[in-house]
Amino acid sequence: MQQPATPDFAARVKSSFDRQAFMTTVGARLVSIEPGHVVIEWPFSEKLTQQHGFLHAGVIAAVADSACGYAALTLMPERVAVLAVEFKINLIKPAKGELFRAVAKVVRAGRTLSVCGAEVQAYVAGNGTTIAVMQGTMMAVPEKSGMVD
Amino acid sequence: MQQPATPDFAARVKSSFDRQAFMTTVGARLVSIEPGHVVIEWPFSEKLTQQHGFLHAGVIAAVADSACGYAALTLMPERVAVLAVEFKINLIKPAKGELFRAVAKVVRAGRTLSVCGAEVQAYVAGNGTTIAVMQGTMMAVPEKSGMVD
Amino acid sequence: MQQPATPDFAARVKSSFDRQAFMTTVGARLVSIEPGHVVIEWPFSEKLTQQHGFLHAGVIAAVADSACGYAALTLMPERVAVLAVEFKINLIKPAKGELFRAVAKVVRAGRTLSVCGAEVQAYVAGNGTTIAVMQGTMMAVPEKSGMVD
Amino acid sequence: MQQPATPDFAARVKSSFDRQAFMTTVGARLVSIEPGHVVIEWPFSEKLTQQHGFLHAGVIAAVADSACGYAALTLMPERVAVLAVEFKINLIKPAKGELFRAVAKVVRAGRTLSVCGAEVQAYVAGNGTTIAVMQGTMMAVPEKSGMVD
Repeated sequence: MQQPATPDFAARVKSSFDRQAFMTTVGARLVSIEPGHVVIEWPFSEKLTQQHGFLHAGVIAAVADSACGYAALTLMPERVAVLAVEFKINLIKPAKGELFRAVAKVVRAGRTLSVCGAEVQAYVAGNGTTIAVMQGTMMAVPEKSGMVD
Repeated sequence: MQQPATPDFAARVKSSFDRQAFMTTVGARLVSIEPGHVVIEWPFSEKLTQQHGFLHAGVIAAVADSACGYAALTLMPERVAVLAVEFKINLIKPAKGELFRAVAKVVRAGRTLSVCGAEVQAYVAGNGTTIAVMQGTMMAVPEKSGMVD
Repeated sequence: MQQPATPDFAARVKSSFDRQAFMTTVGARLVSIEPGHVVIEWPFSEKLTQQHGFLHAGVIAAVADSACGYAALTLMPERVAVLAVEFKINLIKPAKGELFRAVAKVVRAGRTLSVCGAEVQAYVAGNGTTIAVMQGTMMAVPEKSGMVD
Repeated sequence: MQQPATPDFAARVKSSFDRQAFMTTVGARLVSIEPGHVVIEWPFSEKLTQQHGFLHAGVIAAVADSACGYAALTLMPERVAVLAVEFKINLIKPAKGELFRAVAKVVRAGRTLSVCGAEVQAYVAGNGTTIAVMQGTMMAVPEKSGMVD
């Protein structure tokens, strides 16, 4: 079921990521793109916080979702785009740190649907703690459609 | 099981919301605060988009999560804060529109845990379509803790 | 997006339900089949319990999942079968009662994927309480495939 | 945050498992109980199937949920019971096989809430394939309460 990655899988991920304006707003950058495995990092920023001064759960979810989507995209055929069908996230520790890292991997790559898992770590003085775990479903859609159906 | 709302429930929600810097970044505002029911609206913004130019799923999740948390907070006793334990969201239509609205309600208010549901609508020329549905678990934590445990 | 139900939608649901041996094991029966809306009831049974003598969460999930699947199937075209891609359930009250009822409705019917919500009620002396809520994703698959892909 | 397991953690799990009548109905047995890690196996049975003759998703969810609960219980203090707050499961392959195995581990053990992950494998002629993945939240409740609150 696992699709072979296309030769240009990393370029496809970068190109799509660069068009996600919200990733720029967050200050996120791709730090690793391997077949079925993507890592995104971003710095703490005051403007992304919730009421206790920690990172908002939605920001954590946003980056983890992007990492999941791009992990899935590395294994998808040419001329498709990836969209999130759904995801579920557990917030397990306060999102306190100077740097955050979302590590996503494909659990199952299908023709239409891929299931991914992600962990998000917070780094304080270089030491990482897992602060959230995500499980979600990504869909291959025709490149122009932009729509789950 | 449903806790009676404290008299100042709306003020508590507003005060917490105003400290969520990410809601300011998104341009979100509270448009309704009733016991067990909260509505948040926000405008489309280029800086919140994904690769197809639609709103990033994570932004939708972030506002829906805040709406769920505040719907739960309206029914919580004094001197507690609310945190998201986990949530699950289905993205059901492209997040295309000039205005977005997250409508959250409490499905079950418990002493420690509350279960909430939210719908997110996108408005195009005043007509709303449901683009996402969320189901999540919120937790009452001591006001200073900032932590699920 | 909402597919018109086929004229024989109720017969298709009954026929598939009758082949779900586990529904017989549970003692479940279809009590209502409308386009996008299905209700299943089942009695309490000692053999379906968890360690406190209440219904096992997995049994609740099983019937709610079947109800979601069949709600989705009512709106699907001819010659497809329905399978669960994923679901999420919150258990909000003890599953204590003599009769249980899963009420499922389609939130969004797509060509391939449908999103459904379900509530499960427990009845004690004729009075119902909501004990669980589910949100899940169902998929239309070719009739013989039996497989999400 | 990780609680030390009590010396009798395995006995506590066995005792609770033996009171889950539904696990007997399924034919499930505990095959491994380690701190934060539990494995349950069960054989294929006609009476647990869905419309394609494969195991019903709800049965898979039920055993995975029990495995998650007991993995969490191994790390909980004396005199508490464990209940599922919520879980989410992705069904990733047809549940076809002669033997099934749910492997659960604790991702985060908290005072009140624990987050667990589980994988379910199907065995055909001794070869296992992952057919489902679960992520869920378990709660420590007073031994007699039987209730999430």
